Amino acid sequence: MILILKSGVDEAEIEPIRRLLTGQNIIMQDIVGETTRMIGLAGDTSSISEDAVMCFPCVERIMRIQEPYKLAGRKFHPADSMYEISGRRIGAGEFAVIAGPCSVESEEQILSVARDVKASGASFLRGGAFKPRTSPYAFRGLGLDGLELLRLARQKTGLPIVTEIMSQEYLDAFAEHVDVIQIGARNMQNFALLQQVGSIGKPVLLKRGLSSTLEELLMAAEYIMAGGSQEVILCERGIRTFETATRNTLDLSAIPVLRQRTHLPVVIDPSHATGYWHLVEPMALAAVAAGADGLIIEVHNHPEAALCDGAQSITPQVFHRLMRKADAVRAAIR
Amino acid sequence: MILILKSGVDEAEIEPIRRLLTGQNIIMQDIVGETTRMIGLAGDTSSISEDAVMCFPCVERIMRIQEPYKLAGRKFHPADSMYEISGRRIGAGEFAVIAGPCSVESEEQILSVARDVKASGASFLRGGAFKPRTSPYAFRGLGLDGLELLRLARQKTGLPIVTEIMSQEYLDAFAEHVDVIQIGARNMQNFALLQQVGSIGKPVLLKRGLSSTLEELLMAAEYIMAGGSQEVILCERGIRTFETATRNTLDLSAIPVLRQRTHLPVVIDPSHATGYWHLVEPMALAAVAAGADGLIIEVHNHPEAALCDGAQSITPQVFHRLMRKADAVRAAIR
Amino acid sequence: MILILKSGVDEAEIEPIRRLLTGQNIIMQDIVGETTRMIGLAGDTSSISEDAVMCFPCVERIMRIQEPYKLAGRKFHPADSMYEISGRRIGAGEFAVIAGPCSVESEEQILSVARDVKASGASFLRGGAFKPRTSPYAFRGLGLDGLELLRLARQKTGLPIVTEIMSQEYLDAFAEHVDVIQIGARNMQNFALLQQVGSIGKPVLLKRGLSSTLEELLMAAEYIMAGGSQEVILCERGIRTFETATRNTLDLSAIPVLRQRTHLPVVIDPSHATGYWHLVEPMALAAVAAGADGLIIEVHNHPEAALCDGAQSITPQVFHRLMRKADAVRAAIR
Amino acid sequence: MILILKSGVDEAEIEPIRRLLTGQNIIMQDIVGETTRMIGLAGDTSSISEDAVMCFPCVERIMRIQEPYKLAGRKFHPADSMYEISGRRIGAGEFAVIAGPCSVESEEQILSVARDVKASGASFLRGGAFKPRTSPYAFRGLGLDGLELLRLARQKTGLPIVTEIMSQEYLDAFAEHVDVIQIGARNMQNFALLQQVGSIGKPVLLKRGLSSTLEELLMAAEYIMAGGSQEVILCERGIRTFETATRNTLDLSAIPVLRQRTHLPVVIDPSHATGYWHLVEPMALAAVAAGADGLIIEVHNHPEAALCDGAQSITPQVFHRLMRKADAVRAAIR
Repeated sequence: MILILKSGVDEAEIEPIRRLLTGQNIIMQDIVGETTRMIGLAGDTSSISEDAVMCFPCVERIMRIQEPYKLAGRKFHPADSMYEISGRRIGAGEFAVIAGPCSVESEEQILSVARDVKASGASFLRGGAFKPRTSPYAFRGLGLDGLELLRLARQKTGLPIVTEIMSQEYLDAFAEHVDVIQIGARNMQNFALLQQVGSIGKPVLLKRGLSSTLEELLMAAEYIMAGGSQEVILCERGIRTFETATRNTLDLSAIPVLRQRTHLPVVIDPSHATGYWHLVEPMALAAVAAGADGLIIEVHNHPEAALCDGAQSITPQVFHRLMRKADAVRAAIR
Repeated sequence: MILILKSGVDEAEIEPIRRLLTGQNIIMQDIVGETTRMIGLAGDTSSISEDAVMCFPCVERIMRIQEPYKLAGRKFHPADSMYEISGRRIGAGEFAVIAGPCSVESEEQILSVARDVKASGASFLRGGAFKPRTSPYAFRGLGLDGLELLRLARQKTGLPIVTEIMSQEYLDAFAEHVDVIQIGARNMQNFALLQQVGSIGKPVLLKRGLSSTLEELLMAAEYIMAGGSQEVILCERGIRTFETATRNTLDLSAIPVLRQRTHLPVVIDPSHATGYWHLVEPMALAAVAAGADGLIIEVHNHPEAALCDGAQSITPQVFHRLMRKADAVRAAIR
Repeated sequence: MILILKSGVDEAEIEPIRRLLTGQNIIMQDIVGETTRMIGLAGDTSSISEDAVMCFPCVERIMRIQEPYKLAGRKFHPADSMYEISGRRIGAGEFAVIAGPCSVESEEQILSVARDVKASGASFLRGGAFKPRTSPYAFRGLGLDGLELLRLARQKTGLPIVTEIMSQEYLDAFAEHVDVIQIGARNMQNFALLQQVGSIGKPVLLKRGLSSTLEELLMAAEYIMAGGSQEVILCERGIRTFETATRNTLDLSAIPVLRQRTHLPVVIDPSHATGYWHLVEPMALAAVAAGADGLIIEVHNHPEAALCDGAQSITPQVFHRLMRKADAVRAAIR
Repeated sequence: MILILKSGVDEAEIEPIRRLLTGQNIIMQDIVGETTRMIGLAGDTSSISEDAVMCFPCVERIMRIQEPYKLAGRKFHPADSMYEISGRRIGAGEFAVIAGPCSVESEEQILSVARDVKASGASFLRGGAFKPRTSPYAFRGLGLDGLELLRLARQKTGLPIVTEIMSQEYLDAFAEHVDVIQIGARNMQNFALLQQVGSIGKPVLLKRGLSSTLEELLMAAEYIMAGGSQEVILCERGIRTFETATRNTLDLSAIPVLRQRTHLPVVIDPSHATGYWHLVEPMALAAVAAGADGLIIEVHNHPEAALCDGAQSITPQVFHRLMRKADAVRAAIR
């Protein structure tokens, strides 16, 4: 960490900072430039409050050098992580596709979709039992009945299930029945939930918030990991920009950037990012070409009758074609 | 709601839509332009799933005409709302300032600040007992002990207290001890929390999410109101943009825009929006000039020793001056 | 175009609008919903000023149905465009890579890079003679001497040249010596330049502005085409968002969205979008997988000695490998 | 400037950087932290190419300490600048309002508006003769005839005129007839135009680009000042964000931030920022309360018949009231 001081600062003004930081075992090194004076700080600067330091009138700016995340970072965990979840693998070269409907709607629907996506090569089944909806008047999912239908689908197909938790109220049910617990984009900085979900120790699929930086995404993963669970999968699902032609803007450069900074697997959700089914295939293939560890894709057997997000769901037929092309692209970049 | 159809669509393709919507008591009216064919929908269109309609291959685009919020909107509640909370008023011309430290740190601190801000004219005391922090390693507030100190400060000064809830775990404690329950920006779309807090029936201060549109803010208020509480105060606290000179970009046009759309009071938080104490006064005065119903301002007796957000806190002296100027601006725009 | 009227509007208030629009040969159709009254407008609405209509106090909102672009749109030009430029093809399935240094620096440099990229399969040579730089104190290119060196490189290698014009001052020189005239992102809405460049009738590479929507990009292309040149190549090169891990956010969904709306070829510039050379290859491959018609890539023989943008340039060796992988990805998605 | 090196770098890898920079008279100082090694650079670092340095494989990141602008900055020009332009003052406590129609449309219109805004206290007359329009099919202004009408209005009212230049083609006409030359938001980084306009030596009103940072705005001012003109007025007119309730998001915190960094006057354009006339007054008053040096406001005698931007124009009556309130707010904050 480096403190850049205001010009014309004298030693007496710096003294209180020296006292504060010496008490925290921080070593200070003066850096005197031609026009600017700085203080370099060495030691465990993760405990220093930037806010506290910024209050000293002589400080103009602070620059952090070290990454603020430890468990999620590559520094102490250089190799890619790979998880084996109910017999399926993801990470470190193991590619996995999570597919299924936006919402679980009925036994017929979830079983039909589960069988179709399994036949096409999906490794995990997704489906919402609890749905975050902008309007309190919209369909919010079948709740615990939806969880029950997902269990049934797992039993019939063997696919591990991925589904979103929205509240600590159902923590026990998720701990018991769900293979991968999803934290949605709108809850990425619901710190209470992150910690509680982390404490269960199950694999977690963490979606990037609509306006979260990649560093914030890694800090949210750090919350979960500090809570206990070490198996976090990061998911890019589009960020909010000024462009209105797509629902959000899919930030595929997140893949190589995260690859550099973290050992955690990275999956891409082109369905929620784009909001339109005809954009799903090209963006899914682009994600594979950029090196994603997996995809999460909405598939519905009757998109026009879907209770939620039908416009972005692809049919099992389109999904089947997409999987074939994704295989080809993976082979191409190897 | 208007459906814009793709060009060259024939009646057979439209038939399934007619069936779906007729079943929902929606009246359809054909609109045939020179190059574009449309269907206008009348009736209670709030129950129509845009997603479902978008799945029909003949539909190119959908345009919603009516506002999706009812309780928060002006249509059925044209007059400004005014709340009387523990003897203090806000809304419909009643201006209120909420002031206090970012975090409750000690009895000495909270009492000292409470007395100072009261003496300068603040109506409510703010102070965080539970703090959302990006890093799991940062100070996260005193928790229930912090709530206890806030109660003490209220007892000594008579100022009603405003503090943030982060998890349903403490719902009972908040219901019992807090005058205005704050939902933070990062939880604006934590729909489970919105609903639970609404069910308590207490006044709620709802902060706009960093990347939430004003319509989404109103929909979040709608969640709380649909849950039970009718006294929601909206708070603009900066949105996330590309500009890095300030922590966030304070969107003051939210004041007149919200004034037009909703009867709920609107307050502005210049401290969190800008992130720098020297920007607080000018932006607070700008908010007053734009017609805000109130301000929420961080005040700390020793900003440089604050455990959190010291850099954006002003001293009681600066706050005192700000309050005098705010009074003058209010008089000027009347 | 549809006018949504305020509630409770009576016929007398609408009368002035009827007069205004009837005079413009616009046919009006009343649409009366349960709570909202609208007027549908048919005819050539592209001549209607939305601003003028918005001034009538009875109008609440306007919705445009038709696309505002004609020459660039698919409606009157359904088939993909393909251009043959100095013997190289791009568009409608013909894939082309434009490669070269950010700036032309010396004869040795441009000839060396030109030979290398040609050997690896590039179709066009890029290189800046006039450079847009944020600081007036930075290197701004060799100017006309740079153009001269590009001509030399074309003569030696046969590669057509692509280079940026920044001012109408050099229009004649560009008309004479350049194969594809580039309009940079910062000039995408320099309407005077768009029109002048269009009037030359040469192929134009038009880069998307940092905060321009895809519709605005198409309207900028429309300017050029209305000016005369029909051979416009669109280029996505990253948009400005809150994320700071990359210089800009590469919006690859622009590829399938533009494919749907326009017949013009679309190329991707991963070098400027990301700002870091190690992100260029994964994003280039992603662009190919998403269906781009081409790439534009910065290649430098000595990146560390580059006078500009060295950090995002790849070496000829990395470029060679990228081209092999790009070929494989193209084969995979076919 | 500080170079942060990758971990585990050895002296041999740093050697080429030392050679490069020693040749540029830069003094290097090693900063060795516990986990990170850095090199502090002193001397005139404005000549160092960050790109060149970033190409050395041992460099992880670069941090610039000094501001990149000199003429526009406060460092060498601590006092606020005040300009006297054709008898009107702006800056350093002198408040000025620039008012008039979006476009000059006719003699009757411009004279009528000019007289009205003068009577209400405006200091300058604005009016577009050359209009930047997103569509090539829209009204683009009267051109030189518009300039002629502005001259006539100045002659009749004594108000100096402010109007936008879009191309160097008309540089001579602007140099001869215009008091303050406006550079529009879309041309803020049209570096050729900035330099040419600067060379005339006339006052310039420089609008912030829709996605430009405040630092980029100051660098654009630096271009003009380096070109010759020292009288630059900065104008905030809204930035592009995800919010759609307003045309752009007016960033009023730009006022105190720029005040700190530059001696140049800052004016606010609430008309273009918001896009709706009923938002103009509250945002204008907010700008005054935040300390703006002036306002630029669209006023039209018949907004509903305006050829451009009528929806954001206020009538002379509303303008008159706004001016009275603005005076009161200015008095209040003194």
